[in-house]
Amino acid sequence: MNINEYIELINKKLDEYMPEDKFPQDIFKAMKYTVTLPGKRIRPIMCMESCRIFGGNIEDAIPTACAIEMLHAQTLIHDDLPCMDNDDYRRGKPTNHKVFGEANAVLAGDALISFAPQIILKYSKHIGAEKLVKIMEEYFEYAGAYGVIAGQVADIEAEKNWKNNIFGLKPEELLDFIHTHKTADLFRLPLRCGAIIAGASDEDLEKISELAQILGVAFQISDDILDVTSTFEEMGKTIGKDENADKLTYVALYGLEESKCKLTCLLDKSCDMINGFKVQSEPLLEIISGIKKRVCIK
Amino acid sequence: MNINEYIELINKKLDEYMPEDKFPQDIFKAMKYTVTLPGKRIRPIMCMESCRIFGGNIEDAIPTACAIEMLHAQTLIHDDLPCMDNDDYRRGKPTNHKVFGEANAVLAGDALISFAPQIILKYSKHIGAEKLVKIMEEYFEYAGAYGVIAGQVADIEAEKNWKNNIFGLKPEELLDFIHTHKTADLFRLPLRCGAIIAGASDEDLEKISELAQILGVAFQISDDILDVTSTFEEMGKTIGKDENADKLTYVALYGLEESKCKLTCLLDKSCDMINGFKVQSEPLLEIISGIKKRVCIK
Repeated sequence: MNINEYIELINKKLDEYMPEDKFPQDIFKAMKYTVTLPGKRIRPIMCMESCRIFGGNIEDAIPTACAIEMLHAQTLIHDDLPCMDNDDYRRGKPTNHKVFGEANAVLAGDALISFAPQIILKYSKHIGAEKLVKIMEEYFEYAGAYGVIAGQVADIEAEKNWKNNIFGLKPEELLDFIHTHKTADLFRLPLRCGAIIAGASDEDLEKISELAQILGVAFQISDDILDVTSTFEEMGKTIGKDENADKLTYVALYGLEESKCKLTCLLDKSCDMINGFKVQSEPLLEIISGIKKRVCIK
Repeated sequence: MNINEYIELINKKLDEYMPEDKFPQDIFKAMKYTVTLPGKRIRPIMCMESCRIFGGNIEDAIPTACAIEMLHAQTLIHDDLPCMDNDDYRRGKPTNHKVFGEANAVLAGDALISFAPQIILKYSKHIGAEKLVKIMEEYFEYAGAYGVIAGQVADIEAEKNWKNNIFGLKPEELLDFIHTHKTADLFRLPLRCGAIIAGASDEDLEKISELAQILGVAFQISDDILDVTSTFEEMGKTIGKDENADKLTYVALYGLEESKCKLTCLLDKSCDMINGFKVQSEPLLEIISGIKKRVCIK
């Protein structure tokens, strides 16, 4: 399957999994609104491709892939709240709380954290209880306080006073912590879950985790670069916010040129890793060339 | 074990399960703050007693019991937020966002939704993957958009314009929906999970669900009565808020006398049900007499 076929499949399944006529409709509509905003669907593609790379059937990974996209949407909804990043636009559309109000946006996010694993449990019964338990463990590890939320908390703190070594970390270490948890953990989750569904070995899980880390950092650096060089139309959200807020970013710390250089290096490394798998993955390579294209790297 | 022994055990375990030295500390401290506020621990006691009633070992139910108390704390943290009920006090202490700020309170709540099932998975391995999957299913069903969140959304809507048949429901039906999901579902969850851990039959699960419904409605009516008749010192939170907000409550709909009458009837019925189980449960009966005492029913 190529990227476009994947996106079509994922969008169809997301639409299918998310009811909107259930009572009380407000909450289901708010949940579905952000989940079904057009997106690159990078994480669910990673999940299905990882499953295929390690010899699994991609059909088996669809519910988990979509659940992780729901979790991703949840982080966006809460990240955009007035008490957090206070963003009015996301993917070119008004943010969830702008449409449904703050209370519903908080609750829609809460509901998605529970709804996503419910989808996995409901539609993946045939992979067996043992694998389901493993996937649940991964889900909570990377979705929770040890994973993406740790990254968000550190990110919020870093906005305030990162020059003063908060948490006892140097700015470079703090930035690394944020990238590892805020971004890489949401890549680790789909890549590892896909591999688990395929029955991959612990060694393979290690390898795919390492790829997630490299891709996560690369993705975050590209985002930091785009925040400086891009426009609202290209990004679908308010840009230049990082600089305005004097935020801790890769560009703020190392400058634009070194950031581009580091990004190129990480993307090349991830291509090598992907090419090293027994099964070739055109879609994962396409995701990487997509990042290159966005930040104008050849 | 009597109620006080249970509370002591649960508090000890909650303290043990909730780290506070993990990085970034802000979030773990915020999570632990609300979870470990002194409380009646009704839900975890229900879970362990239900396990015992159906022939299980209460030790096996401890992680699940504590996880459900964490979930309960999560609902309190988000319920108290300025965009929701905007409460400054909870259990006699400043609410989570008053101590840790709004952003951390949102994230601490999010983290608890994931942290709670993680505790179940981590400390209940010996009950086996099949039962773990069942418990996860129950957890997400009652914690999510079909459960307690449905109740919260309906409750928020009901504050605005319940006299106008919102959601196409009459006020009585809407109130019933709120009680069923906002309160009874968080009793159904521990009672059912305890029974599942004990290996109870589907028929027994039905019975215990019915008890949860009766107790949930009774509990909510008692809360509505106390909001009219109690003081801040007795409740540990701002009272009289319902009346000020012209909120849909049992008392607003049926008056104080009929509410007390209905409550007595429900509590008597629940005592009969509890006495009908093969194993006697003094702690569940004590919980009921506790409610009676609070609202001065003999």
